[in-house]
Amino acid sequence: MNRMKILIINPNSDEGMTQQIRETAEMFASGQYEVECRGNPDAPRFIETYEDQVRTAPGMMSLVRENEDTCNAFIVACHCDPNLDALKEITERPVIGIGQASMSIAAMLGHRFSVVSTSAHSIPNKEALVHKYHLSGQLASVRAPSPGMESAPDEEKYLDAARRALAEDGAEVIVLGCAGMTGLDKRLQAQLGTPVLDGVVCALILASGLLFWGRTMKSS
Amino acid sequence: MNRMKILIINPNSDEGMTQQIRETAEMFASGQYEVECRGNPDAPRFIETYEDQVRTAPGMMSLVRENEDTCNAFIVACHCDPNLDALKEITERPVIGIGQASMSIAAMLGHRFSVVSTSAHSIPNKEALVHKYHLSGQLASVRAPSPGMESAPDEEKYLDAARRALAEDGAEVIVLGCAGMTGLDKRLQAQLGTPVLDGVVCALILASGLLFWGRTMKSS
Amino acid sequence: MNRMKILIINPNSDEGMTQQIRETAEMFASGQYEVECRGNPDAPRFIETYEDQVRTAPGMMSLVRENEDTCNAFIVACHCDPNLDALKEITERPVIGIGQASMSIAAMLGHRFSVVSTSAHSIPNKEALVHKYHLSGQLASVRAPSPGMESAPDEEKYLDAARRALAEDGAEVIVLGCAGMTGLDKRLQAQLGTPVLDGVVCALILASGLLFWGRTMKSS
Amino acid sequence: MNRMKILIINPNSDEGMTQQIRETAEMFASGQYEVECRGNPDAPRFIETYEDQVRTAPGMMSLVRENEDTCNAFIVACHCDPNLDALKEITERPVIGIGQASMSIAAMLGHRFSVVSTSAHSIPNKEALVHKYHLSGQLASVRAPSPGMESAPDEEKYLDAARRALAEDGAEVIVLGCAGMTGLDKRLQAQLGTPVLDGVVCALILASGLLFWGRTMKSS
Amino acid sequence: MNRMKILIINPNSDEGMTQQIRETAEMFASGQYEVECRGNPDAPRFIETYEDQVRTAPGMMSLVRENEDTCNAFIVACHCDPNLDALKEITERPVIGIGQASMSIAAMLGHRFSVVSTSAHSIPNKEALVHKYHLSGQLASVRAPSPGMESAPDEEKYLDAARRALAEDGAEVIVLGCAGMTGLDKRLQAQLGTPVLDGVVCALILASGLLFWGRTMKSS
Amino acid sequence: MNRMKILIINPNSDEGMTQQIRETAEMFASGQYEVECRGNPDAPRFIETYEDQVRTAPGMMSLVRENEDTCNAFIVACHCDPNLDALKEITERPVIGIGQASMSIAAMLGHRFSVVSTSAHSIPNKEALVHKYHLSGQLASVRAPSPGMESAPDEEKYLDAARRALAEDGAEVIVLGCAGMTGLDKRLQAQLGTPVLDGVVCALILASGLLFWGRTMKSS
Repeated sequence: MNRMKILIINPNSDEGMTQQIRETAEMFASGQYEVECRGNPDAPRFIETYEDQVRTAPGMMSLVRENEDTCNAFIVACHCDPNLDALKEITERPVIGIGQASMSIAAMLGHRFSVVSTSAHSIPNKEALVHKYHLSGQLASVRAPSPGMESAPDEEKYLDAARRALAEDGAEVIVLGCAGMTGLDKRLQAQLGTPVLDGVVCALILASGLLFWGRTMKSS
Repeated sequence: MNRMKILIINPNSDEGMTQQIRETAEMFASGQYEVECRGNPDAPRFIETYEDQVRTAPGMMSLVRENEDTCNAFIVACHCDPNLDALKEITERPVIGIGQASMSIAAMLGHRFSVVSTSAHSIPNKEALVHKYHLSGQLASVRAPSPGMESAPDEEKYLDAARRALAEDGAEVIVLGCAGMTGLDKRLQAQLGTPVLDGVVCALILASGLLFWGRTMKSS
Repeated sequence: MNRMKILIINPNSDEGMTQQIRETAEMFASGQYEVECRGNPDAPRFIETYEDQVRTAPGMMSLVRENEDTCNAFIVACHCDPNLDALKEITERPVIGIGQASMSIAAMLGHRFSVVSTSAHSIPNKEALVHKYHLSGQLASVRAPSPGMESAPDEEKYLDAARRALAEDGAEVIVLGCAGMTGLDKRLQAQLGTPVLDGVVCALILASGLLFWGRTMKSS
Repeated sequence: MNRMKILIINPNSDEGMTQQIRETAEMFASGQYEVECRGNPDAPRFIETYEDQVRTAPGMMSLVRENEDTCNAFIVACHCDPNLDALKEITERPVIGIGQASMSIAAMLGHRFSVVSTSAHSIPNKEALVHKYHLSGQLASVRAPSPGMESAPDEEKYLDAARRALAEDGAEVIVLGCAGMTGLDKRLQAQLGTPVLDGVVCALILASGLLFWGRTMKSS
Repeated sequence: MNRMKILIINPNSDEGMTQQIRETAEMFASGQYEVECRGNPDAPRFIETYEDQVRTAPGMMSLVRENEDTCNAFIVACHCDPNLDALKEITERPVIGIGQASMSIAAMLGHRFSVVSTSAHSIPNKEALVHKYHLSGQLASVRAPSPGMESAPDEEKYLDAARRALAEDGAEVIVLGCAGMTGLDKRLQAQLGTPVLDGVVCALILASGLLFWGRTMKSS
Repeated sequence: MNRMKILIINPNSDEGMTQQIRETAEMFASGQYEVECRGNPDAPRFIETYEDQVRTAPGMMSLVRENEDTCNAFIVACHCDPNLDALKEITERPVIGIGQASMSIAAMLGHRFSVVSTSAHSIPNKEALVHKYHLSGQLASVRAPSPGMESAPDEEKYLDAARRALAEDGAEVIVLGCAGMTGLDKRLQAQLGTPVLDGVVCALILASGLLFWGRTMKSS
């Protein structure tokens, strides 16, 4: 039986972000299965607009097609889940988006969750994504850093946004709304005392779980 | 004051369908404003899957960018509204999708509407689109031709599907769920005795109306 | 072929408001079709309560019945759409309410819209109307002038209410929530930099569009 | 302390129906409080359309205004609750509609309820009323007599419609969807073995209950 | 015919609260039917958590089973309606929860209602209960006493919470969200000028009403 | 670092079912972490009614309390998730219900899912659970074995129910709606060609995933 392998696709071309995602994934997988993490060189450096999502498509489609024989599952490591529907269509292997994975698990862990987002102008698109996944009834809020805190260190500004979500919006769970926030979850969780979900981890939980299940299927 | 011009983009590469859309559009515009209708030569011949939608994106984006200076509004003439969000982002001019236009007007004309779709396997995607537009509460059904009627002439099989929607699902308005059905609306309506909406017409109503309104704005 | 004619019914008896509506309508129609604008002499001067709506009914019903032979469509020019369901029943011609028309188009133009209303006590009724039209999921807020601004000039107080809707409620489109605000749309839009919809214009877009479509039907 | 009195308004002009409603009401009140039951002589004989509802308004408004001093609460005894919002506005006394009362109590007594309606063409309007009251999530169906049974005796055809609602639609409670069905509830309930609600009774439960509560208020 | 009797179950073991509930119930019943009010000695003194609800179950089940022969209906007098579904299952007699009764009646009396709750940490559970009953669309807010007012006298702190619900959340009706608030309704209502509902009263309205209706059934 | 251990609680007293659940769990865990599977000797043999759920509570609460020190997470292995809210309250360790886990994952894997249930009278309760989890918008149907098939072998009758859900209700994913169906998933999936989810597996995916994540937390 070959070793199980999951390909994590960072839809953007920021190699630093690909490396961060890789570190989280390898720490979580801890050698139980292989994780490969690939960026998308021809895509924009940051995925923010719908146009960015469109521009990531060719590279993402190629990565899935070229690796279908050697990888058992795919993860889309951008919290707006670009092209997720199309990727699911072109392969029979599981494809998990970190946005859907993290928000669906958040909806199970508490009455309501908030998404911490990178900037205020991404809020309407995030809310549209939450609606797409039928999760609006469990959303407390999408929160971006407060005006004046945009240039504060990441941990500080997202911690502040999360604190306001808990205190003012009734959130019981926090979702990190960008793959670039990966690695912050446990530090924020320690300070907030409430679950903080990293989409990369959530998608790996589901993808690896479904693979283990499939594997037991083959052996039954 | 220059003459008002609307560019209608057929996202697929089927020239016959582009021609049909052009005929509907020119008949409706009847010379009050200019309509140009363009196909998407590098795209698939029929847009059915999410991957098809992704593959139509580059041509559609180019058409908008290249015609922004000379056209006052854009229409996406495929009932699944491919890349509509992205097109809206890259231009300040109005961009109307025939799916959203026809289903939103349908929701105004009766208690509930049904969409007549080309084939049964397109139903889940169409329902997802209806949900995206917050119209699920007014949807009676998405109906495809009955098993056994797939190879009947278009008018016959869609008429049958629409009749069943009216009789069994409580629909009061019928929406033609594919740009390729353009031109059938009035013949079906005459036989059904209930409104039958053609998305190309609905999108032109809204696009031309918004342009007239903008024009009066400029002159005020 | 006779000239197309739309009758706009101002449900109240305020002749000044009827005249304002007439001006907007004639500017928008700009001679392409005839618009007639009629008030309702036996009705209250302002339609605010459900009782006001009931009291406008006899005059509105008469106007539709008496003009059915000479008019091709009807518009109800009060943003609470009084008696719209009943008027739709008694005539086969299109009847469009400015409330439904403006809010449905708003829902197409952005993620969420806010309605600017004349006074705080009209908010629950407006929210009930939004719910009736299944648009609650796309409503950002109904906003009335802030306490202390009630006696400011119309443009100033509604501009302030709209600004707060954009800044605090996540609105991307503003709907003018009273026929008496007609004519303010473009001035507000210029200052807000976001679409501001006048219900009279929105209803004319739909009514004239449906009539042009019907006309092409007859000639086909 | 004066004797408590509830005025039940039959919005239509069918004296036979007024008498039926009176009998149900007097049997239920059984002398604990006074019930007066009045028809609406200038209204249509049957309230079915939105226009009918409009035409019942003047008589209903007068009945409330003329009896406000001597009656403690009002009931609108037509299952489409015509003009309920307007009546609530013009009096501070409780006004209860038999449609809202029966469907709200039904929603408490089981997971889902069905409304048995007089005819198929009333279904869309009834569904709109259910939506108005935010009860769609608990509605199993609106059922009219089956084709071919329209001329069967009332008890037989409504029993058949109710049976199908229980067997096919998942209903657990049946609501009689017309004041003219008053008196059938217990006979149907005995045969169906499931609760069958008569709107006149439901409205009296709420109206008399709120009055008793108010009375204790005054004495406290 | 035996005298009608309703058993009101206070799910907790606080005898003082049982006595308060008894006083409200006897005042409302005013001798027209018998009300018996029983506490639950083996249960916690206050029902706040889901575990508390579980711990009240055995005593509540016993009270229903032991009194089914002599009582005609049961009321669960805790606003979180603990074990209501189970009690409904084990008896054919009506079982009414004060939470569902009060919030359903509130939804009929105004556009939106707010629940005044004992403490902020009960808000998510109350919102879950509102969702369970499909009442979220009519909920303005769940309000607990403001920080700093927790130790103020009950009337004062709940009056303040209700005032904020009316002024800031758009509530038109206030629901007392704990059986322990029974007796405050009319004093708050007098000061707020808007309906304030006591769940014990609301449940008695429905339970006694359904019993009277059943009684007339038997005699028909 | 101690070995990770998950306690799976079968809320009923059927030792055969406990053994089946144990087999599925051990096959899925495949030695990567310890799974212990315990029945509830004082509970009913089958959990079907709300009363059954209440009667399982004391044993379930004890199992959690007694094993909190040695187990890292808990799974409730009954598809109606009895007492899940209460168990989540009394421990800080993750508690996952197989109903919520399987239906939430199903909602991620396709547009709509159906639950195959043991019998028709469990459908309303299952639909209430689906509503509780805000998943109604993604539910195709709850299907029980067809009349006449109740006594067919399990695999045959559930296969038939699932087939009808796929063909008639638009389901794309099947959820096994009872812990007693564990082990059937892959055989049904092979015959249906669509995902079939076993709640025990789904809950283990989430519970073990969250534990691995927590473990990496401790080591960071």
